[in-house]
Amino acid sequence: MDEKESSTDGMAQRIYLDNNATTPLELDVKEAITSALSKAWGNPSSSHTQGIEAKAIIEESRQYVAEMLGAKASDMIFNSGGTEGNNMILQTGVKYFHSNRHCINNGSMEKDHLPHFITSNLEHDAVKLVLEHFAEEGIASVTFVPASSKTGHVMVDDVIAAIRPSTCMISLMLANNETGIIQPVKEIFERVKQINTSRKSVPKILLHTDAAQAIGKIPVNVQDLGADYLTVVGHKFYGPRIGAIYVKDLGSGKEVPLYPMFYGGGQERNYRPGTENTAMIAGLGQASKLVTENIDKYNKHMQKIRDYLEERLKGEFGDGVCFNGRIGTSCRIPNTCNVSFLSVDCTGSEVLSNCKLVQASIGAACHSQNRPSPILLALDIEETVARRAIRLSVGRETTQEDIDKAVNDLKQAVKKIQNRNGGLSPQFVEY
Amino acid sequence: MDEKESSTDGMAQRIYLDNNATTPLELDVKEAITSALSKAWGNPSSSHTQGIEAKAIIEESRQYVAEMLGAKASDMIFNSGGTEGNNMILQTGVKYFHSNRHCINNGSMEKDHLPHFITSNLEHDAVKLVLEHFAEEGIASVTFVPASSKTGHVMVDDVIAAIRPSTCMISLMLANNETGIIQPVKEIFERVKQINTSRKSVPKILLHTDAAQAIGKIPVNVQDLGADYLTVVGHKFYGPRIGAIYVKDLGSGKEVPLYPMFYGGGQERNYRPGTENTAMIAGLGQASKLVTENIDKYNKHMQKIRDYLEERLKGEFGDGVCFNGRIGTSCRIPNTCNVSFLSVDCTGSEVLSNCKLVQASIGAACHSQNRPSPILLALDIEETVARRAIRLSVGRETTQEDIDKAVNDLKQAVKKIQNRNGGLSPQFVEY
Ligand SMILES: Cc1ncc(COP(=O)(O)O)c(C=O)c1O
Ligand SMILES: Cc1ncc(COP(=O)(O)O)c(C=O)c1O
Repeated sequence: MDEKESSTDGMAQRIYLDNNATTPLELDVKEAITSALSKAWGNPSSSHTQGIEAKAIIEESRQYVAEMLGAKASDMIFNSGGTEGNNMILQTGVKYFHSNRHCINNGSMEKDHLPHFITSNLEHDAVKLVLEHFAEEGIASVTFVPASSKTGHVMVDDVIAAIRPSTCMISLMLANNETGIIQPVKEIFERVKQINTSRKSVPKILLHTDAAQAIGKIPVNVQDLGADYLTVVGHKFYGPRIGAIYVKDLGSGKEVPLYPMFYGGGQERNYRPGTENTAMIAGLGQASKLVTENIDKYNKHMQKIRDYLEERLKGEFGDGVCFNGRIGTSCRIPNTCNVSFLSVDCTGSEVLSNCKLVQASIGAACHSQNRPSPILLALDIEETVARRAIRLSVGRETTQEDIDKAVNDLKQAVKKIQNRNGGLSPQFVEY
Repeated sequence: MDEKESSTDGMAQRIYLDNNATTPLELDVKEAITSALSKAWGNPSSSHTQGIEAKAIIEESRQYVAEMLGAKASDMIFNSGGTEGNNMILQTGVKYFHSNRHCINNGSMEKDHLPHFITSNLEHDAVKLVLEHFAEEGIASVTFVPASSKTGHVMVDDVIAAIRPSTCMISLMLANNETGIIQPVKEIFERVKQINTSRKSVPKILLHTDAAQAIGKIPVNVQDLGADYLTVVGHKFYGPRIGAIYVKDLGSGKEVPLYPMFYGGGQERNYRPGTENTAMIAGLGQASKLVTENIDKYNKHMQKIRDYLEERLKGEFGDGVCFNGRIGTSCRIPNTCNVSFLSVDCTGSEVLSNCKLVQASIGAACHSQNRPSPILLALDIEETVARRAIRLSVGRETTQEDIDKAVNDLKQAVKKIQNRNGGLSPQFVEY
């Protein structure tokens, strides 16, 4: 309660259901940041006390982030966020391919002079647009494996079938930001690992998962997933606007490489130079520690609240709502409800703009709020439904009372639009 | 005083003379950050109130940063720091060259198929190592114009003489981080601009200055400098660990291009995607506002304190000290004193490690503290002097009393080493 009030200062009226876009910061996280701003402002590379103290905070945080993921501290590199993390890992795939071309001696890659990436058609722009850029510029060829409309995620066999001799990296998000659907990343990575062992004449395929939307909602363990790379985004789990990447056995001379995008002062073992953002790193460490300690509690709470939300929506709107993230028996992260209001002929954005309390979005925050979600369309959800979709993502602090208010708010918004439209709801009839 | 106490919490004993490595944060800056962490945590791309409020803070900050530099808000792009800024601008030089190759029709660039950069041999690693990497990888050819030992900076004519048909960019730091010497960037840029006007068959040369060490110490105005690009680093002027770049008339369709390093959610007009670090941006805005309002005061105070420091050192050590940044009539930023203690046969680091109060360094924080500074060697300063060098950089809050204590502390350190060495100081005799 305390935490909630302080994080929303005088905004008690608003009901924030956009936790997949970003989360408020936990009180402990804010304290870690402000304390470091005041006390640990030294340059972590400086050899005097002021620097040594800052360095110590960074290394403590690295330990916390690693622990959250079941990784070693030395596997973690701090950076400015998820976008940087994904870009760096994907660029590493390209450089890895080229640095391995000389080992290829049976000619099987000869016609494939470009590195080949496999991804899904559900990825965030911070993966999708990087790979599209690679394809456009002739830097790489890319297979966007279409998700199955029966499961809402890519199918293991479809990914495996896309593998070529030139495939250098597979990048798949762990949980989707719009539907919340969890992809079978572990199963896919296991299958690829088997293929890797028999891949003698071409380099092994590197495995990346963007875990931005999974961390803090479900347990995420790099060993269990079998990931070579994993992207961490602080502000999705009540942490600050920086990030980190996990790279398996980084710098051990083992098989998983990492190429820097920047050159400079040698920070982060030269992988990511630039004077460290100590305060934000302290916050990321704290946010990770909270996840390690409380993931079960967070998971259960969110699931209870999200399920209550869907129950209440169904109760109020009946056939006037459908849930776009409930596909087959697929698992979802526990906080996400993607819902379309079918009883009004208007877009999800229009419904939201008629809400007085609810703060939510129709999909990724960085995407246009005027087009139907490409993610939903990719899942063969009809356009009339997709354009009506709203993503409601609950948080650690969302209460049943908030949900009751939110549902009432949505009801009045829908009613207002219905009245404005003269009570007609042609699309609903048609649907 | 208040500010000082709060920024050094219980570290009253230490005397911080390493403000070129990093500065503490101003109280106003910390307040802007903590306030934004609590109130403006929304995703700036979200169309609901929580997002709109965050966006407004970012745009206000952009205005403040621009004002500090005499730029337009639309010329500023926020990023994670100086290293990212320099890397992005230099990579833009390469892409600019390639995108202009088709316009070259008189064949003058034919043998120069690589873009050519001109820089100095005094640059920070965040420029130097980028360009060395370009050269090693065959991405670009680079001329490192040697600074003159008579002035401590590159000479205008030497830079101009290095221009080739394939020269795409000149990158020169405004003030050096170790000596504090200010380079004739304005004069050089003026000369190149004249050359650009008569450069018909080859693309014009782009002009970058890394102003990391100048901002907050001397007035920095992009118009006055005639810069196309300028690097801003928050933590060097009592701001947070993020940065910004200035790009002349960015996106106006005019001549100065900028190519993104990342692809993703479209933030910063697609030039620098990734959910914005609102709180740190708020802090950068506040730090910039303080500079705009107080630059004269800061400048005068630092100069007074630095001059007092050099006077006191001379008074105490006489010929036992020499000042490496005082070269000819060259101007220095007002806070930097680069001094060698000649009366002991030990390195600058050893002197510092025998200090009880003084927190300083021998050069760039991210550089080895065991080798003599490459910057001083590049200025033909003798190795015996260079290895004894210490960089003392005063700050806004440094007092004469601090200086008195610091000089005493340095005296006891030097004495301790002299005693340990049995009173011998062979190098001093030799010098
Ligand atoms: C799945 C996913 N990946 C990556 C990102 C990018 O993170 P950021 O915008 O913080 O760089 C986000 C969120 O924006 C996301 O949802
Ligand atoms: C001249 C100069 N340029 C660039 C930088 C790099 O800034 P950062 O390490 O914050 O990225 C620094 C300081 O470290 C510097 O002194």
